[in-house]
Amino acid sequence: MSAAIDAVEAYLEDTADERLAEYLELLRIPTVGVLSEHAADVRSGAEWIASNMRAIGLEHVEVSETPGFPVVYADWLNAPGAPTVVIYCHYDVQPVDPLDLWAHPPFDPHVANGRVYGRGAADDKGQLHLHLWAARAWLATAGRLPLNVRYVFEGEEEAGSTHFEGWLDANRERLRADVVVISDTSFYEGNHPALTLSLRGNMYLQIDVTGPDLDLHSGQFGGMVQNPANALARILASLRHGDGRVAVPGFYDDTEELSRADRAAMAELPFDESEFAAGIGVPGLFGEPGYSALERRGSRPTLDVCGLWSGFQDEGSKTIIPAHAHAKLSCRITSGMDPHRTFERVRDAILAVDVPGVDVEVTLIDGMQPFGVAMEHPMTQTAARCMEQVFGQAPYFLREGGSIGAVASFDRIVGAPVVMLGFANADDQAHAPNESMVLANYEGGVRTVARYFEALAAA
Amino acid sequence: MSAAIDAVEAYLEDTADERLAEYLELLRIPTVGVLSEHAADVRSGAEWIASNMRAIGLEHVEVSETPGFPVVYADWLNAPGAPTVVIYCHYDVQPVDPLDLWAHPPFDPHVANGRVYGRGAADDKGQLHLHLWAARAWLATAGRLPLNVRYVFEGEEEAGSTHFEGWLDANRERLRADVVVISDTSFYEGNHPALTLSLRGNMYLQIDVTGPDLDLHSGQFGGMVQNPANALARILASLRHGDGRVAVPGFYDDTEELSRADRAAMAELPFDESEFAAGIGVPGLFGEPGYSALERRGSRPTLDVCGLWSGFQDEGSKTIIPAHAHAKLSCRITSGMDPHRTFERVRDAILAVDVPGVDVEVTLIDGMQPFGVAMEHPMTQTAARCMEQVFGQAPYFLREGGSIGAVASFDRIVGAPVVMLGFANADDQAHAPNESMVLANYEGGVRTVARYFEALAAA
Repeated sequence: MSAAIDAVEAYLEDTADERLAEYLELLRIPTVGVLSEHAADVRSGAEWIASNMRAIGLEHVEVSETPGFPVVYADWLNAPGAPTVVIYCHYDVQPVDPLDLWAHPPFDPHVANGRVYGRGAADDKGQLHLHLWAARAWLATAGRLPLNVRYVFEGEEEAGSTHFEGWLDANRERLRADVVVISDTSFYEGNHPALTLSLRGNMYLQIDVTGPDLDLHSGQFGGMVQNPANALARILASLRHGDGRVAVPGFYDDTEELSRADRAAMAELPFDESEFAAGIGVPGLFGEPGYSALERRGSRPTLDVCGLWSGFQDEGSKTIIPAHAHAKLSCRITSGMDPHRTFERVRDAILAVDVPGVDVEVTLIDGMQPFGVAMEHPMTQTAARCMEQVFGQAPYFLREGGSIGAVASFDRIVGAPVVMLGFANADDQAHAPNESMVLANYEGGVRTVARYFEALAAA
Repeated sequence: MSAAIDAVEAYLEDTADERLAEYLELLRIPTVGVLSEHAADVRSGAEWIASNMRAIGLEHVEVSETPGFPVVYADWLNAPGAPTVVIYCHYDVQPVDPLDLWAHPPFDPHVANGRVYGRGAADDKGQLHLHLWAARAWLATAGRLPLNVRYVFEGEEEAGSTHFEGWLDANRERLRADVVVISDTSFYEGNHPALTLSLRGNMYLQIDVTGPDLDLHSGQFGGMVQNPANALARILASLRHGDGRVAVPGFYDDTEELSRADRAAMAELPFDESEFAAGIGVPGLFGEPGYSALERRGSRPTLDVCGLWSGFQDEGSKTIIPAHAHAKLSCRITSGMDPHRTFERVRDAILAVDVPGVDVEVTLIDGMQPFGVAMEHPMTQTAARCMEQVFGQAPYFLREGGSIGAVASFDRIVGAPVVMLGFANADDQAHAPNESMVLANYEGGVRTVARYFEALAAA
């Protein structure tokens, strides 16, 4: 491409050894946020990043406190008229147990088979570190960045991002941006480059069915009173058809259907249903008719019971009519849907079931907005082009079934399109022993980000 | 009636003080079978009864060992040509906790308000003791009994009668009889004399629904796989209609409908539905249409979930698709039904529910035959007449919803009609603190049994 990019590439070529050494140095800091014995290490990690940011020429570097672990913030805002990008990664890592399953100590990283092994290599310190080097390469070669950047590196992602939304709210002013880049996702199976376009949201509720004051003898009372557990089963069964379609009135009303192009993109993904089913130990996949398994996961809402409890749960027999019965229920929701509106619809459907003789209560426990960016969005297409230039393959576009709290928060608070530009591999074993990052993905990541800066500025 | 009965009555009149003193003496022995610290006391109780039996002139007295606590056996078989009656009571009692709710120590019995207070006063040592005195009065006044009697006093009734059926099986020979009298039941509310005509049986099963090898993330997998908890709810809901009728094909096929006379007898029982509902804390009673609450309890089979468990049961949210889901289910069954046939029908209905993507297993845990004797049976009518002569009121005929293991065992092994001739009061607080026996019921019990001997011999 441009001469500037040529210089960046050359710089990156020359500094590969230094970069790798520094990457391993960052991995040696055991930033396990959920374990109190590592609290000082997590802070060391934040300081390490801040001092690296200062060294490479980023500005307003700050280890910004929260009631938990700090957010590391820095920016470079000297490109008036150019767009502004917010970049999000996290520097805390998962615990390492079971330690005995690690082939090498998790905080003594090493390189083998073209991979960097160590806790946090992929999730997410490797991805954080490649962003530092994309900026460094520009600043070292051009003395500037092609656009304005604000870095937001969280320290509590693996602990549920408890204080992160509060921090975003309190820092709205310095988060104004045209695009948010989140680097905490993976390529597709087979290490095929991929961009994640959407995440489902969630609505989580509890149902409490209350009958008699105490468990009753099923002989002395059976046939005289409603049974809360039978009533609960009746309620739950009424919420879903036998084929997996949700039966709640209006449930699908706000769901945005995928376009033909979206469906075509999903159909391109290699996916072997029976291999997938065997991998999780079920006889076959199952779900709403009319959609492929990947479409169901990525673009269709669900209604799943997450927990059930009532009465006697031990071995043998206890002949009772339970005094109460309970269920936890999760609805994954898709673009266009809202957790509160979904809650109201499901709650109304539950309360409409005719179960005389018991009291039914429904409580909202959690809600998370769905997130999605259009495949056709310029920010997405630009990222895809940069990825293809670097990795030699056009990325797949993925629609993920889960939710990432930070994404929904950014979407809500920053209000700019979010691009999930991640470089980990599908077999990175994040959250498990022997986590690794494919070194070529890491290096390609630095280059992709460096190009993305220029491409965004030119767009 | 007869001169013999006149003599018995006079004897009972003269010996009331001695009888009461002896009754209290028996109550002082803490025969709590389920607590190992009382094991020696339970054996003392058995010996006390055996020595009392010898003293009053019963024969073949034996403290007959089982792998648990002994059965106390005795007989008097010197009435050739006369019928033989087996009499069943139990000498073990419930534990006494919570002890601080007893107004007087449970094993220091006392008389107040026309009642004997103490653990076992009603359940079942008072009823056992009145049988000893019915025999004693006959033997002391006539030197004989009008018929042949075999006493079978169990020591493990409150512990589930674990070894009792084995003992009955091993003692078939000496249990041949024309009628079995079981004294372990109560009068009706308001202390109205009552005879229990039937008990429901039971069929208890477990359903295990198995899905993936491990709990799955409801975001990453929701919509792709069947959910075992949703599948279980679907299965359970399919087994019962919304109005309480069981939906299992053939479930009611073997149920014997009550005769018009039976229904008329049940309709006579005073029963206030709303008071009953308020007493157990439900807004109203509920069950199969077309039958009164007492008919449903006494004469109709049921299908009740006794327990449910799956996935996440704590506070808050955990977004999983549970790997498995389970339910315990009890069917109370009525005359004509068989626990194994009922199991097969319910199991087939469960396995017929179309829930692709999971494995469903159904396991029989317990089965107990229902029991019933006709209201018109001579043994029943004779007992009712004796009761009316002594208490001045014709007894109600009750159909109980629960099951008594010993009754089903006697029915099967002895093969003679069973008459449940009990004298406790509905408010006796058996199994609770401050258990009591109405002294007039106890005294009337002695007289009813004494008359029943003569009436059975004359029938």
